[in-house]
Amino acid sequence: MSATIDTTLPTVNARIYPRGGLDVLSRDEVARLRDASTGMHDLLRRCALAVLTSGSASDDPRAARELYPDFDIQVHQQDRGVRIDLAHAPAMAFVDGEIIHGVADLLFAVVRDLAYTAIELGSGRDLESTEGITDSVFGLLRNARILHPADPNLVVCWGGHSISRDEYVYTKQVGYELGLRGLDICTGCGPGAMKGPMKGATIAHAKQRQRRSRYIGITEPGIIAAESPNPIVNHLVIMPDIEKRLEAFVRLGHGIIVFPGGVGTAEEILYLLGILLREENQGLPFPLVFTGPSASAPYFEQIDKFIRLTLGEAATSRYEIVIGDPVTVAKRMSTGIRKVRENRIAHQDSFFFNWSLKVPLEFQRPFVPSHEAMAKLDLHHGRKPHELAADLRRAFSGIVAGNVKEDGMRRIEARGPFEIHGDADMMQSLDALLRAFVDQRRMKIAGEYKPCYRVVT
Amino acid sequence: MSATIDTTLPTVNARIYPRGGLDVLSRDEVARLRDASTGMHDLLRRCALAVLTSGSASDDPRAARELYPDFDIQVHQQDRGVRIDLAHAPAMAFVDGEIIHGVADLLFAVVRDLAYTAIELGSGRDLESTEGITDSVFGLLRNARILHPADPNLVVCWGGHSISRDEYVYTKQVGYELGLRGLDICTGCGPGAMKGPMKGATIAHAKQRQRRSRYIGITEPGIIAAESPNPIVNHLVIMPDIEKRLEAFVRLGHGIIVFPGGVGTAEEILYLLGILLREENQGLPFPLVFTGPSASAPYFEQIDKFIRLTLGEAATSRYEIVIGDPVTVAKRMSTGIRKVRENRIAHQDSFFFNWSLKVPLEFQRPFVPSHEAMAKLDLHHGRKPHELAADLRRAFSGIVAGNVKEDGMRRIEARGPFEIHGDADMMQSLDALLRAFVDQRRMKIAGEYKPCYRVVT
Amino acid sequence: MSATIDTTLPTVNARIYPRGGLDVLSRDEVARLRDASTGMHDLLRRCALAVLTSGSASDDPRAARELYPDFDIQVHQQDRGVRIDLAHAPAMAFVDGEIIHGVADLLFAVVRDLAYTAIELGSGRDLESTEGITDSVFGLLRNARILHPADPNLVVCWGGHSISRDEYVYTKQVGYELGLRGLDICTGCGPGAMKGPMKGATIAHAKQRQRRSRYIGITEPGIIAAESPNPIVNHLVIMPDIEKRLEAFVRLGHGIIVFPGGVGTAEEILYLLGILLREENQGLPFPLVFTGPSASAPYFEQIDKFIRLTLGEAATSRYEIVIGDPVTVAKRMSTGIRKVRENRIAHQDSFFFNWSLKVPLEFQRPFVPSHEAMAKLDLHHGRKPHELAADLRRAFSGIVAGNVKEDGMRRIEARGPFEIHGDADMMQSLDALLRAFVDQRRMKIAGEYKPCYRVVT
Amino acid sequence: MSATIDTTLPTVNARIYPRGGLDVLSRDEVARLRDASTGMHDLLRRCALAVLTSGSASDDPRAARELYPDFDIQVHQQDRGVRIDLAHAPAMAFVDGEIIHGVADLLFAVVRDLAYTAIELGSGRDLESTEGITDSVFGLLRNARILHPADPNLVVCWGGHSISRDEYVYTKQVGYELGLRGLDICTGCGPGAMKGPMKGATIAHAKQRQRRSRYIGITEPGIIAAESPNPIVNHLVIMPDIEKRLEAFVRLGHGIIVFPGGVGTAEEILYLLGILLREENQGLPFPLVFTGPSASAPYFEQIDKFIRLTLGEAATSRYEIVIGDPVTVAKRMSTGIRKVRENRIAHQDSFFFNWSLKVPLEFQRPFVPSHEAMAKLDLHHGRKPHELAADLRRAFSGIVAGNVKEDGMRRIEARGPFEIHGDADMMQSLDALLRAFVDQRRMKIAGEYKPCYRVVT
Repeated sequence: MSATIDTTLPTVNARIYPRGGLDVLSRDEVARLRDASTGMHDLLRRCALAVLTSGSASDDPRAARELYPDFDIQVHQQDRGVRIDLAHAPAMAFVDGEIIHGVADLLFAVVRDLAYTAIELGSGRDLESTEGITDSVFGLLRNARILHPADPNLVVCWGGHSISRDEYVYTKQVGYELGLRGLDICTGCGPGAMKGPMKGATIAHAKQRQRRSRYIGITEPGIIAAESPNPIVNHLVIMPDIEKRLEAFVRLGHGIIVFPGGVGTAEEILYLLGILLREENQGLPFPLVFTGPSASAPYFEQIDKFIRLTLGEAATSRYEIVIGDPVTVAKRMSTGIRKVRENRIAHQDSFFFNWSLKVPLEFQRPFVPSHEAMAKLDLHHGRKPHELAADLRRAFSGIVAGNVKEDGMRRIEARGPFEIHGDADMMQSLDALLRAFVDQRRMKIAGEYKPCYRVVT
Repeated sequence: MSATIDTTLPTVNARIYPRGGLDVLSRDEVARLRDASTGMHDLLRRCALAVLTSGSASDDPRAARELYPDFDIQVHQQDRGVRIDLAHAPAMAFVDGEIIHGVADLLFAVVRDLAYTAIELGSGRDLESTEGITDSVFGLLRNARILHPADPNLVVCWGGHSISRDEYVYTKQVGYELGLRGLDICTGCGPGAMKGPMKGATIAHAKQRQRRSRYIGITEPGIIAAESPNPIVNHLVIMPDIEKRLEAFVRLGHGIIVFPGGVGTAEEILYLLGILLREENQGLPFPLVFTGPSASAPYFEQIDKFIRLTLGEAATSRYEIVIGDPVTVAKRMSTGIRKVRENRIAHQDSFFFNWSLKVPLEFQRPFVPSHEAMAKLDLHHGRKPHELAADLRRAFSGIVAGNVKEDGMRRIEARGPFEIHGDADMMQSLDALLRAFVDQRRMKIAGEYKPCYRVVT
Repeated sequence: MSATIDTTLPTVNARIYPRGGLDVLSRDEVARLRDASTGMHDLLRRCALAVLTSGSASDDPRAARELYPDFDIQVHQQDRGVRIDLAHAPAMAFVDGEIIHGVADLLFAVVRDLAYTAIELGSGRDLESTEGITDSVFGLLRNARILHPADPNLVVCWGGHSISRDEYVYTKQVGYELGLRGLDICTGCGPGAMKGPMKGATIAHAKQRQRRSRYIGITEPGIIAAESPNPIVNHLVIMPDIEKRLEAFVRLGHGIIVFPGGVGTAEEILYLLGILLREENQGLPFPLVFTGPSASAPYFEQIDKFIRLTLGEAATSRYEIVIGDPVTVAKRMSTGIRKVRENRIAHQDSFFFNWSLKVPLEFQRPFVPSHEAMAKLDLHHGRKPHELAADLRRAFSGIVAGNVKEDGMRRIEARGPFEIHGDADMMQSLDALLRAFVDQRRMKIAGEYKPCYRVVT
Repeated sequence: MSATIDTTLPTVNARIYPRGGLDVLSRDEVARLRDASTGMHDLLRRCALAVLTSGSASDDPRAARELYPDFDIQVHQQDRGVRIDLAHAPAMAFVDGEIIHGVADLLFAVVRDLAYTAIELGSGRDLESTEGITDSVFGLLRNARILHPADPNLVVCWGGHSISRDEYVYTKQVGYELGLRGLDICTGCGPGAMKGPMKGATIAHAKQRQRRSRYIGITEPGIIAAESPNPIVNHLVIMPDIEKRLEAFVRLGHGIIVFPGGVGTAEEILYLLGILLREENQGLPFPLVFTGPSASAPYFEQIDKFIRLTLGEAATSRYEIVIGDPVTVAKRMSTGIRKVRENRIAHQDSFFFNWSLKVPLEFQRPFVPSHEAMAKLDLHHGRKPHELAADLRRAFSGIVAGNVKEDGMRRIEARGPFEIHGDADMMQSLDALLRAFVDQRRMKIAGEYKPCYRVVT
């Protein structure tokens, strides 16, 4: 009735039925699913909208909701299982009135994972002990049918969603070389470095006539809206929080490649190094390569310097930096994963889940970046590397929230910047790193960059 | 050490790995599975032995154990999941040192179902309410991967394991005609009338080039030893007790055929009629045919007479008797199942599980045929048909136990025959029926038949 | 019009469309196919009738035609390829108005092979040289899609269509043991020893969860009517004559088992030994086992004696006689075929066609058993074993024709018995063998046995 | 031994075995294949090199041969079939020493098609009549296993290999929209407009979870070297000459899209219009769309003007021009192909080959653009449109040869430009068109453009 209607986009109403997976449910389960989806209706609506706008250019968490203000989703019981009703859904997810099969699959993945989290993890399950948390990660991944007892071949690719054209092309080339070697790809399922490797691998898999490839996207409710799953993802999992998502990456992947990125990528690097540097994990093979095109060399030099300063020289034994050489990156992964395979056999660990890796509780407990929590971080020299890494990881996590997540941004608006305590050199290095991210446009900041934190040495 | 060793049969030691199904387990689950299998070691051993002697002629529950006295089975954790270790296992399950694939599948089905029963149904689950029990039946069947959202085509065949050659050939012919019409078979998975229809259908499915046929065997720990799964069964489920097994049959099957049988078959007929005669189930289509070769006509006349006498004339509207005509039997099923399909669609019920059928609690609660329980049965005219049917079912169940089940036989040996209370005509009819079973050799009795019960009118 | 109509059986009219194989034809090919099928209309009609009565008990070549006097078949051009129109076809090939899929497949196999023979082999192709004939056998088998580049596993089973119940059960047991070891079966595709091994293997393949089993039936126009393909056959090939059929057996099979049989089986044995005894084939591994139940021991003693007398002691090195031991038979085949595999690799011969075996022209040229041709046979001692074997083979071939084939029987009726020239001891032994076949009911003779030949020493 | 070695690229020696297709050959066929491949060794070498450098940037026919001067290919007989030996082959076709599966497939396609052409089409087959030529096209396509009896869904895309970035992106978008609608792609298998639609469709097919997509490339020996198959092609066919290649396009495709291109594209347009304008083909539905991004509008205006001038206004009823609207293009194809389907059913034509289309002999006979043949062309008003179209097609074909094909360029070098006779306005229009192609860089010309023809009015 008002002029605002003109700014919205074409929409479609539709009923969607699942193809496999959600089809054999008990009456009780369907009812609980429907109830659960009612209980978390807003969350479901947001995630569904992200999936339905998959492949669109914008990564503003609020944009989609403004473009499709009347969008709604309902889960219903249907004779053979469940049915999803969509109202005013983005027309871009449909072709001549039919929903794109892959989008429908992702939509049911959203319902499946949110329901599992609400029903299975919501009631009485142990989510306090390290074993209990790991078990919940395993349960979610298995329920998503991602755990296959096949030969290890899954490479996790981390990196920014906002990278240069040059870097994007490079991630495609690396993905292509990985794909030629029969490796599958797992990423955080947004654009940029999370999309490039999948695109490259798709072409390579086609050339190798490899039909059953896996392009796994692992996300969480807080970022799915900002990083809508790219169109190549054929397995989507929504973990309940950042920490479980990170644990899913490191237990599922047989090797990890880090492309240039922003604060989020830095958080991921610190998370992984914090774990790998623990004594219990010392003997465990875990191929880890930092890579980018020649122009990105300075980026990794800076990261490398920051790691040496904070976690010590020893930390560098856990990763290798390869610049401008996709073939070498792919060969390193290929060789490294062969060693992972041998190690799993020798230690009777499964191929599909890295049980042997010890992830300490401090890396598993959800970190809510309140002003209080941020103020408690202890970024001083002299702490054990993995403990310091844990706090550094939290610092980055809080900064990501303060910069791009809705509730984080609100908190900063309300109470001013976080206060972070640490040694001067470390904090200067941190500051330099973040400013470099801004300069290199790796953090999407509206207007001038205003740090969301204040250093207290 | 002694001469008795000579009477045992050749054995094999082996390690078996699962192919799909039991392969993606968490460490915790494998541990619980191993513990559960230790806790119910004797049960596991008995069921495994039944599977490993699948296809052998004997149906003496104790024979296999005497022939393979040193047989043992252990469940172990292996890198990718579980492993089964067999010691002194029957050589007949192996070909040139390799276990037969189908036998291995059934072996893992045994472990899977016993573990599910111990772990899932053993802890805190509601098994007292009618919904809770039905849900546990559903859970077990789904866990066994038997619930497929495909078009209804499953015919349950009931009947004796000890039938005449003439009758056996007839069950094969019926199975053949069912198979020609694309119908799959579900039975109690022993020999005789439980094997014939599967054999016939196998040939028909081969002629129709139908590759993914289902030959489902549903059994329970008390009878699997006596009725070893026949070699055609490609889906085996072990329900925890008789009542859940019966519920599995009626919720899974889209139609039921009853061949000549003994007390067990009579128990099944009364169970089903007791349910179908309830008002809530009146509108529900449920194809039910009693059939046998011409020579078996008297058998069904007797059954028919017994039903009319006990449950009343109205009960006969629920079944049809077809004598010596396999084609008509198959056509009735085919047509009947088409109506079931329409009804399911109209009432939004699933194709793979008959949720609409009301099974009252009195048919679900496990009946333990103690002398006290048998004495409480109330077999008098004037009761509601379905209540009377429930008690008649229990009476037959107790008589089966007293005749062929180990603990039942022990009880009779210890305390003498059961006392059953009922009206004279009904009890005479019951007695006549049982004596006819003995005369027709439908009950395997060692020596002269001595009823395990005494009528108290 | 007359009372005879009452003796005919129920019939059906139908249109059948091919599923794969005959579907991508050029317009010209469809036209030639239609023309060819017109040109050989009577032959097509006879073969089609045999397929449509597949599984029926009778083996009288004329019975089916009398039971279905109005049966007709026409091949038509249809938009996407060909279509078969059936008129007054046996109702037994249909289920509720739909043709059985497997029967339809066999029906199209008939059209395919007769057309290939008429079109490809009928025009200008070299069928006079040994290479040319072998090439035509290869062409026909490939066109029938029977040549797979898979590991050697095909056992040819020869033996009588008219055997005792005891012997039939034994052939099933052997087939079962072969099937357990992953071996596929090829036979002459009639009843008796040609059906038993397939039935046994079907059950074993089901137990081993082997889904893509091959049950190949190789026949020829002269006997298909008498030996209607049994219902298990899933690959049917119609070779143009007896000699090409025999060559197909020995080039396709990786090993051969001979069960008790009649004259036809004796013909097959002599054919094979005649080839294997040639010097060029001496080093070639070719597992060959004669086997039957204990009661059949005398049968093989007689055969063995006859071979020693006619072909010499050396001939016995090429076969092994195993009595009453299906497991040993299967193990011999399994081991023997492994050697065949190694030999093929060593000599770069294909797995799917035994190119290395030399089949001399005298075994390839069609033998028409006219009185003149039979009179020219030279059954005297002193000839080279393989030459004598060739003539003995022809003698048996003629006797089969004189006893059961239509044109042979007509010739004997017209001109009296064949005259066969040979040494007295050899001819007596031959006579004794044939009389034993009659006594053991291995030759179906109407009335008293009257030899169709006369010995001239 | 000399310094020139330094300019060559890394190479690999390898033995390649076929996967399906070329594996069941008779000894004689393998021998003939080997002989044929020897007889046409240079042709085989050139085509193989094109395949092995698939995806490389250059399209200079002579470049690859200079970069890999020692490259050689031999076809050998191997136990199970054929084997390809490569010497000094481009390393770019290998990954860590293993040939890329898709490249190996294309390599065997080259051998398969050249052998078929040499063996089947080389001996006695009628290649003079219109039916005979069509039959040879059918035979080659069937032998390449491209004819599937599935629903019509194949869109042929024509257009230049040398197009602007803008146009290339547009072809990807059109391919994407076609792929979303389940349509498969067939092109001339080079870069540019022949690659874009396949790339776009690959992504769309992945989103629609369509696994068995077809990306067919149809080429011929004269251009495969210049237009190396792009890496997406999963079915490659090498037709013996331009005319059979064009006939393959129009009989195989269910609709055709024309993107901007150069002389070759103009030749294709005139070929197709010449056929569609014949009276016999008037009723035949054949969706035909000319399309490009907005910037390409002038290109199609010029083409449109040229068609109107030469073939008359009526010719425009056969095509539609859509500018800058991929969705509309895909919808037009989708709708048009549905009509094609209905027409095929109505006229009992096959789905996989357009038998109903009449292609007159003048469009089938290979045109060798000698100076004499070019001088005979008759480009005057007043001729029947389809006859004029045939000569115009030949004129463009000759100009393509004179500009980019090796033998054509040699002829021009030796004897000066072709002389073409025609009406002044038509020849001016032709000249204007060609100059526009040069200006728009649609013809790759080294140095300044010097027409290879001279107009004689």
